[in-house]
Amino acid sequence: MNKKGKLIVISAPSGCGKDTVVAEMIKRMDGRACRSISMTTRQIRPGEKDGVNYYYVSREDFLKSIKNGDMLEYTVYGSNYYGTPASPVREMLREGKVVFLIIEVEGGENVKKIFPDAVKIFIIPPSFEALEKRLRGRGTDSDDAIKARLSIARAEIVRADEYDYIVENDVLDKAVDDCMAIIRAEELKISSMQNKLSEVINNA
Amino acid sequence: MNKKGKLIVISAPSGCGKDTVVAEMIKRMDGRACRSISMTTRQIRPGEKDGVNYYYVSREDFLKSIKNGDMLEYTVYGSNYYGTPASPVREMLREGKVVFLIIEVEGGENVKKIFPDAVKIFIIPPSFEALEKRLRGRGTDSDDAIKARLSIARAEIVRADEYDYIVENDVLDKAVDDCMAIIRAEELKISSMQNKLSEVINNA
Repeated sequence: MNKKGKLIVISAPSGCGKDTVVAEMIKRMDGRACRSISMTTRQIRPGEKDGVNYYYVSREDFLKSIKNGDMLEYTVYGSNYYGTPASPVREMLREGKVVFLIIEVEGGENVKKIFPDAVKIFIIPPSFEALEKRLRGRGTDSDDAIKARLSIARAEIVRADEYDYIVENDVLDKAVDDCMAIIRAEELKISSMQNKLSEVINNA
Repeated sequence: MNKKGKLIVISAPSGCGKDTVVAEMIKRMDGRACRSISMTTRQIRPGEKDGVNYYYVSREDFLKSIKNGDMLEYTVYGSNYYGTPASPVREMLREGKVVFLIIEVEGGENVKKIFPDAVKIFIIPPSFEALEKRLRGRGTDSDDAIKARLSIARAEIVRADEYDYIVENDVLDKAVDDCMAIIRAEELKISSMQNKLSEVINNA
């Protein structure tokens, strides 16, 4: 059976646990799923691997990717570019993989233009109170930084209705179960089951 | 939280185990789900209960339901009418229940007109060979009856693309898991999560 891949776009405000949720799903899906890899112009660091942590490219190549419309989103941080190229995602989908793409709300808009079948999940905190508690619990941000993060979070959650599904991350395991249910359901949609249907009908 | 009900329409050829799948889901959902109840003009039998096995009504009342457009589907068997009235379904949905409606492909078409939010699942056998084996295994049908059932099954499966989801019932537990994933995913759709979203945003 020629199993088609699925692109799953995940967005969430900082502090909602999106990286943990995705890491847990990849673990559960046992080789069938992977995370899209970003591209950067910064130097590779000791211990990092090209094509694992990032694709490390020259500034010239990065700008070429932007020009070719291959960059789903990109940002400049310091003097380096960071971005999400579409072509490796396309390659992984062709191999039948479930590809997770963690992306900003802004970038999420773009993805549907290039990958119209992408499934977009937005992860929300149980409440702003809970989110604030988590951000404070990290102990890495100043009071002002936390206030800024919360205000960004609010602006992002207001745009959650651009997504297909909303998952609340209160208890990690439950949030992962919910995301897994979404992926399974998407695989059972009539549009994804045409091959199986034809197979049954043609062998009648 | 004001949890909305969900209407889940289930169709499948005879022998695909739709009743078992639905019974298993209702068990797993522990009071949150129920099956829609049919209406009939036949006499109530000892041991049966009105509103449990069927709604037992007069021929006059049955015809009134048809006339009022409340009957999702109906059929005449012998001298009695059997049908699926919409109003009890509407009532159960208002109570926030997940309502399973097992219905013929013909009737399924109608449901979406009256319940546009209904989710339609079509259950298929792993193959026609497997279906034939199951029908023979029952030991209740003659060879001709089995041939007739298989030919009806084929005509029904060809119309499976009128459904939202396709679930293969090879191993019962897996088919039930798949249907449960569909229901969970439907509950996480942005259209079902507006209340939760507003709750989080308004308490920011």
